[in-house]
Amino acid sequence: MAVYTEISDDELASFVATYAIGSIVGCKGIAEGVENSNFLLQTTQGPFILTLYERRVNPADLPFFVGLMEHLARSGVRCPVPLTDKDGQALKTLCGKPAAIVSFLQGMWPRKIAPWHCGELGKAQAQMHLAGMSCDMRRDNSLSVAGWRDLYGRIAKDAAENVETGLHASLARELDFLEGAWPQLTPQAALPAGIVHADLFPDNVFFLNNACSGLIDFYFACTDFLAYDLAICMNAWCFEPDGDFNATKAHRLLASYESVRPLEPAEKAALPLLARGAAMRFLLTRLYDWVNTPPGAMVKPKDPREYLRKLAFHRGVNSIAAYGLS
Amino acid sequence: MAVYTEISDDELASFVATYAIGSIVGCKGIAEGVENSNFLLQTTQGPFILTLYERRVNPADLPFFVGLMEHLARSGVRCPVPLTDKDGQALKTLCGKPAAIVSFLQGMWPRKIAPWHCGELGKAQAQMHLAGMSCDMRRDNSLSVAGWRDLYGRIAKDAAENVETGLHASLARELDFLEGAWPQLTPQAALPAGIVHADLFPDNVFFLNNACSGLIDFYFACTDFLAYDLAICMNAWCFEPDGDFNATKAHRLLASYESVRPLEPAEKAALPLLARGAAMRFLLTRLYDWVNTPPGAMVKPKDPREYLRKLAFHRGVNSIAAYGLS
Repeated sequence: MAVYTEISDDELASFVATYAIGSIVGCKGIAEGVENSNFLLQTTQGPFILTLYERRVNPADLPFFVGLMEHLARSGVRCPVPLTDKDGQALKTLCGKPAAIVSFLQGMWPRKIAPWHCGELGKAQAQMHLAGMSCDMRRDNSLSVAGWRDLYGRIAKDAAENVETGLHASLARELDFLEGAWPQLTPQAALPAGIVHADLFPDNVFFLNNACSGLIDFYFACTDFLAYDLAICMNAWCFEPDGDFNATKAHRLLASYESVRPLEPAEKAALPLLARGAAMRFLLTRLYDWVNTPPGAMVKPKDPREYLRKLAFHRGVNSIAAYGLS
Repeated sequence: MAVYTEISDDELASFVATYAIGSIVGCKGIAEGVENSNFLLQTTQGPFILTLYERRVNPADLPFFVGLMEHLARSGVRCPVPLTDKDGQALKTLCGKPAAIVSFLQGMWPRKIAPWHCGELGKAQAQMHLAGMSCDMRRDNSLSVAGWRDLYGRIAKDAAENVETGLHASLARELDFLEGAWPQLTPQAALPAGIVHADLFPDNVFFLNNACSGLIDFYFACTDFLAYDLAICMNAWCFEPDGDFNATKAHRLLASYESVRPLEPAEKAALPLLARGAAMRFLLTRLYDWVNTPPGAMVKPKDPREYLRKLAFHRGVNSIAAYGLS
């Protein structure tokens, strides 16, 4: 679940009254999401999403996230749009925490991924990448290669060994390799960079009437290689529940992405490395949560072994052909 | 949280298509509630609540619950109304579980109880009791006096002693007393009986614009003494967070109830006993959950000590004057 903060009726009524969105007819905590408290707010003008930003989000990053959603929405990307109050403010405070109301994005995230979902995703992600080009904000990706060593250091050796024998040492070797091979994120980089979502898992992509209806949850968005974002999606969307890689899904994802923004040769060549890094990033955060979450916690950590298998797959890939692209 | 079942998009679309409520524009799991999986379903016709009945609910009881909500709504009680599908069915199956869609009840439950909330509650409960009189269904209350001994027997002595030294023996003495003193629920009973909600805690009572907008969650409703329902509310609404009894709130509750359905002298005389029994009922179920819930469970059990203190208070009451009524 993800409701960490209880909002009193009086506090909520005062808060909503600062917006021109009618009066409250209901407000229910949403069971999804892990980072923040989300509420489905019904007013006389319809549904909205109210988010309270909890401790995992750095308040200093909020102007970037809110500004990005505004920029993307203005550029035609379907995503939640932050509402401004009667004083023009989008970022506010409720129950002592940063808070915002965003528009309700229609659609549902897919529980069972079909190849056509991957096709729709590819187009939507490429559109988002293009729209991000005209955004002049930037935010470092603290969960890219420079951050992995620190994350690794915070995972106790014994705990890692409990997950899989030899894991602690093999992660160190993988880190050494990735730190050596990873491309530099500089203005002269061979790989195009820009604003990426960095967390486009199925629960952040909505569909309606057999089409993607929009993207949500931009709270990991940052400046990084565009193809790295695609590599994250390959990990998140193109493996079957039994662990097998589905090249048909990857083909649909990449080909549809290319129908909107063709990949450069350097990006295609780097994709196996980027996919390996993306698997490492989610393996490390899941492993960290797995070994550091107390047993009674509200949010159950996800099994890190899933990403261990994905990492092993990408280690065996040496050309984009394995991903279904010629 | 309370989403135990993940519904796939295809299953949901097929399910909703059997109703004449438009097409789906969103469906989000609701973080509240403990017994069932609840979803806020948005369609082109507005918001609805979708409930999947989980294992704690006996499927044989569902026709009673659904029929009761229909009866109450027809009688003017504000509560969720079960929708019927194109074949006239209200109780259906989704993901292999019993399921129903009910109307969206406007309002929010109060996080901080003020005396006026208790006044509104009293009126709404009395109206519900009167409306229930014309309902010809009945359902035994398995959590009334006849069920307490069994519940007590399923709480290990050691576990009870861990909560409070001497608790196991003192509960046995309390049970002996209540079983001896409790009135018989027969057609000749001195106390009026009928359909009661039996779980009217603040999270089941909605308010909007300073008035009660309706009651929800009828899944403990049963046939019992009407004044016992009121006794449950006294326990749930009239104690302060620090444990003190607030006679002003109790007065508002009882006086407002009486403005709609005056209490008979026998009911007033029985109220301290019924309140003691109501405290015992919630003490026993909370204690049972407290000692039997595994540490990693999704729903955190509530501390039973709260009801231990309430029980002690009612044991010291010998007339309704303590509840603010002359």
